[in-house]
Amino acid sequence: MNSFGVIFRVSVFGESHGPAIGVVIDGCPPGLPLATDDFIPDLTRRQSGSKGTTKRQEADIPEILSGVHEGFTNGAPVTVITRNRDRISSDYEGFKDIPRPGHADFTSKMKYSGFADMRGSGHFSGRITWGLVAAGVIAKMIAGKSEINASLISAGGSTDIEKALDEAIAKNDSIGGIIECVVKDPPVALGEPFFYSFESALSHLVFSIPAIKGIEFGSGFDAASMKGSEHNDPFIDGKGKTATNKAGGLNGGITNGNDIIFRVAVKPTSSIGVEQNTFNFTEGKMDILKVTGRHDTCIALRMPVIVEAVTAIAMADLILIDRGINTKRN
Amino acid sequence: MNSFGVIFRVSVFGESHGPAIGVVIDGCPPGLPLATDDFIPDLTRRQSGSKGTTKRQEADIPEILSGVHEGFTNGAPVTVITRNRDRISSDYEGFKDIPRPGHADFTSKMKYSGFADMRGSGHFSGRITWGLVAAGVIAKMIAGKSEINASLISAGGSTDIEKALDEAIAKNDSIGGIIECVVKDPPVALGEPFFYSFESALSHLVFSIPAIKGIEFGSGFDAASMKGSEHNDPFIDGKGKTATNKAGGLNGGITNGNDIIFRVAVKPTSSIGVEQNTFNFTEGKMDILKVTGRHDTCIALRMPVIVEAVTAIAMADLILIDRGINTKRN
Amino acid sequence: MNSFGVIFRVSVFGESHGPAIGVVIDGCPPGLPLATDDFIPDLTRRQSGSKGTTKRQEADIPEILSGVHEGFTNGAPVTVITRNRDRISSDYEGFKDIPRPGHADFTSKMKYSGFADMRGSGHFSGRITWGLVAAGVIAKMIAGKSEINASLISAGGSTDIEKALDEAIAKNDSIGGIIECVVKDPPVALGEPFFYSFESALSHLVFSIPAIKGIEFGSGFDAASMKGSEHNDPFIDGKGKTATNKAGGLNGGITNGNDIIFRVAVKPTSSIGVEQNTFNFTEGKMDILKVTGRHDTCIALRMPVIVEAVTAIAMADLILIDRGINTKRN
Amino acid sequence: MNSFGVIFRVSVFGESHGPAIGVVIDGCPPGLPLATDDFIPDLTRRQSGSKGTTKRQEADIPEILSGVHEGFTNGAPVTVITRNRDRISSDYEGFKDIPRPGHADFTSKMKYSGFADMRGSGHFSGRITWGLVAAGVIAKMIAGKSEINASLISAGGSTDIEKALDEAIAKNDSIGGIIECVVKDPPVALGEPFFYSFESALSHLVFSIPAIKGIEFGSGFDAASMKGSEHNDPFIDGKGKTATNKAGGLNGGITNGNDIIFRVAVKPTSSIGVEQNTFNFTEGKMDILKVTGRHDTCIALRMPVIVEAVTAIAMADLILIDRGINTKRN
Repeated sequence: MNSFGVIFRVSVFGESHGPAIGVVIDGCPPGLPLATDDFIPDLTRRQSGSKGTTKRQEADIPEILSGVHEGFTNGAPVTVITRNRDRISSDYEGFKDIPRPGHADFTSKMKYSGFADMRGSGHFSGRITWGLVAAGVIAKMIAGKSEINASLISAGGSTDIEKALDEAIAKNDSIGGIIECVVKDPPVALGEPFFYSFESALSHLVFSIPAIKGIEFGSGFDAASMKGSEHNDPFIDGKGKTATNKAGGLNGGITNGNDIIFRVAVKPTSSIGVEQNTFNFTEGKMDILKVTGRHDTCIALRMPVIVEAVTAIAMADLILIDRGINTKRN
Repeated sequence: MNSFGVIFRVSVFGESHGPAIGVVIDGCPPGLPLATDDFIPDLTRRQSGSKGTTKRQEADIPEILSGVHEGFTNGAPVTVITRNRDRISSDYEGFKDIPRPGHADFTSKMKYSGFADMRGSGHFSGRITWGLVAAGVIAKMIAGKSEINASLISAGGSTDIEKALDEAIAKNDSIGGIIECVVKDPPVALGEPFFYSFESALSHLVFSIPAIKGIEFGSGFDAASMKGSEHNDPFIDGKGKTATNKAGGLNGGITNGNDIIFRVAVKPTSSIGVEQNTFNFTEGKMDILKVTGRHDTCIALRMPVIVEAVTAIAMADLILIDRGINTKRN
Repeated sequence: MNSFGVIFRVSVFGESHGPAIGVVIDGCPPGLPLATDDFIPDLTRRQSGSKGTTKRQEADIPEILSGVHEGFTNGAPVTVITRNRDRISSDYEGFKDIPRPGHADFTSKMKYSGFADMRGSGHFSGRITWGLVAAGVIAKMIAGKSEINASLISAGGSTDIEKALDEAIAKNDSIGGIIECVVKDPPVALGEPFFYSFESALSHLVFSIPAIKGIEFGSGFDAASMKGSEHNDPFIDGKGKTATNKAGGLNGGITNGNDIIFRVAVKPTSSIGVEQNTFNFTEGKMDILKVTGRHDTCIALRMPVIVEAVTAIAMADLILIDRGINTKRN
Repeated sequence: MNSFGVIFRVSVFGESHGPAIGVVIDGCPPGLPLATDDFIPDLTRRQSGSKGTTKRQEADIPEILSGVHEGFTNGAPVTVITRNRDRISSDYEGFKDIPRPGHADFTSKMKYSGFADMRGSGHFSGRITWGLVAAGVIAKMIAGKSEINASLISAGGSTDIEKALDEAIAKNDSIGGIIECVVKDPPVALGEPFFYSFESALSHLVFSIPAIKGIEFGSGFDAASMKGSEHNDPFIDGKGKTATNKAGGLNGGITNGNDIIFRVAVKPTSSIGVEQNTFNFTEGKMDILKVTGRHDTCIALRMPVIVEAVTAIAMADLILIDRGINTKRN
């Protein structure tokens, strides 16, 4: 189930310490201008290296294997890969015995009956999101003029993100964060009832990103405390513009043309330098785990560009479906 | 896009004031005992009539059209319908001119170029969730011994739900609510990385239910304020039991065998008796809207059984997929 | 797996002797004029009653349950059903013991571990094609101006179909036949490489129809005996018109604008009045079977309209996909 | 639409003269022993070089990019690629002006509005079947003990294949052929009614292979000339063994346990050295085309292993689906 999309279909593959990771993007309209360089800005934003992110440094140079001819998409699937280079697999040996709390070590071992590649979390690694960002670059071209912007609005419960990071680093601990994403001036009428509402498509993709614990659209969880008279967004013109935007640009699962707004909650990285008292599955007793590999203090720092990418991917698929079916409007 | 599922596939159809609504459930294992009566308890829980719910009263007797033979599912698709009877379509005439704020009136009209059936919100009606509940009855049989329980834990921001309802009714207003769902003792290893994580499958379904604005798993949005050392759930035995359950039973998108816990935020019903100042699209100017039809004060009251149903549907599909692929374990 | 299609999705349900059979058609563009009467001509063509067809007489009046409002498709799924009325289930009791040779009795029993509804072949009945024909009526509207015509070109190996029928009826035997289908002036560029070529989509649908044993496009099996210099169709104008049409209008899995031509082989009905020496599974020994129910002498007689329907369904889906992706051309 | 399969999903990518071609295989059970060498025998069978095949010589060494860890599939998608090396793109320059009769030159240009990579037929090349063969290697492991054997049974209308080849080579012409495939001792009960019958799944895949013009199962087109009393296969034991096998091992779209038998018709290669009188689209008038590139005299020679591969792919998907749903039997 490593593919998503009805027409614009994204398939990711690869393991953190395998030969390569990559993505196949099918259903690309032909004629989009595309070159390796187009992937660099977003892939660079995703990269680690700044304060609070892992010291693993991948050059992450994308290689286009298919789907592009003389500078344009050619209608065939676009495949982009990057080689894994900076691998220290020995860091991960012990996690078969003592699976890291909060991590996929235990579930991936169970799921694949012991055959999963657990080095660097294998296929469960955040590294697999590289392919999402690459696909997002193409999806943004299809999403067209709509500007998609995601940013980290808090970390460790604080809007002073720098300070929260310093504290967590000092303690060898990690922190979570909240990312907000806004799509300016989206097309009206994106989203397919009943089961492929805008929120369904987007949340499906968002919860494929490791470490996400929640998503809310517009007023989100606050809506549960509100009255209808407070929450409703009155229309103020014939194009559907509303005075307020509690709905986050979505009514009945369909974009109403106002800005799309949503937030996602990112948990703190589960790999931490702090000692943890947990079960040793090989020895059959409680044990002390101290994780020593290279990890992000706050994985949320690297996520805005990934959230933008999945937003663009959802929009691209919904745009192409809508074009296909609703011929009277398109 | 009115179908969901890879193997256990649910397709809903119908409009609120059309001849009938229903559901086709494909991929049902043969040999499940099934009769009309099996649908009644959950469909009754979904029904309106109690304080805070709409006065529209549908008998909602299910009729099985296919897929059951001599009391057992027969391997062919199960189709269940119910006729729409208690229809007062005149209530909805004006909404073409003055689309209700917060409602799908505007987007459904745009989406379908004016051809949507807008009576009772047509295909966008909460009434379409009837089919989800019917499918959930079968899905619960496949989900087997896992007990799935959802309940309304707050309404209008208060845990005194009765009082919040009384206040809203008195003001002709509506209120939102929060529903919590717990799956006791779920199977380990459900969920398919990368794109069909447990959370992806479930949130996809949840956001098909009208009026949902957010979902969070385990610690959810609180995780964003926590440290890794607080958030991680240490293992305490060789079966994967954890001391705490911040993860809500899910690591890496896969069930770890601990209880699955999630919450959804339901917005206040957008149809309210309070006067609203909004745009009249026919006359091209601001106008006063006062909705007089029959509506729920708190739609969240009727949602626990729907949330249970979609949880069971997601689990059923993930169980059948896992059985298919992971032959070493199953 | 009772659904087919990427955007234009057809789901069939029902058993021959169950309460009803029907079809859900999702992905219908809104605004198509549609009423019950529109289904009658094609459904009537499919009906039995003429020489060589079963004496089972279903009124087969279609009822539209959803998706149509004020005479037009409304963007929601269209559901059409018909009740099963003329059922003589006792005819089929013995087939659990002595499965009919050439029939699905044995495989359906195995497939569904004894839970299949075997009356009238249940979900394996040719009667389920009723839903295909209904879906085809809508699909033909989307396929637009292309005229789709299928006809029986031979039966029992002879082009004198009347005579072949008389002979078979006299002997209580059955005969097969060949149906040829031609699509006049199809749109250019339908078909999606690599896996959803025009031929792939169409043959997938064709082999869902019971009793089909083969399909060939253009020159078909004769192509295997030809030289490239004989088989190639030279172009004769700038629109892609070709001097000959060995390709049957298809190059590389994509329509080239010339007429689409294909033929399907239909086997003789397996239920025959002739005595057959076959195995009695209950008694564990060879036995004599003489089928007495009502059956078609030549099921191929009723198939042209079904073949047209699946052709239209394949075209409708390919048209909507192509519109979605290939925005430069559409 | 470059993916196929419900659980066992195969995605192909690449163009004949692009950087690489490859395949992603998702839904692989974990724990299958797999190494690069396992792909060599079947990939070698597919290779050109022998009499009647193109002189283009690709080393075609497969590289596994993902999904294999310590010699076993690890549950994540398996990706296999090979680099394109022996490219002479200048051979193809002229085909934009004078599209080859019988070839995808015209349709690919139309389909992708001039953006298709037409060198070596780009994504429409038979070379893309390399990925099918690679996927087939894994699929055969899942299909298990069933032996799948395909062979060329005639070429140019003759069973003396050697002689037919010599004649065609002497004339710079090409010839078609017929391939027969037999699956010995297949599992009973594979195939999912209504739309994913064994024949539907297989024909869908077969018609993705370039140059296929027809497929027939068991008696195939001969069935159309037969009587039911001749065509029916009487059962002779309690396991479903039949005295004859006109059905080709398939009743009601489901395997009955007898050998599966089918044949496919392959057209003569459309690229031929013989002069052809066809349209020059640039100059707008009839012209002479003489194709000089390297091509197969009889492409059918290289197809048996491809036909085996798609048979295994269809079986693998149907096996995993059946395991998932039919828990009483599996």
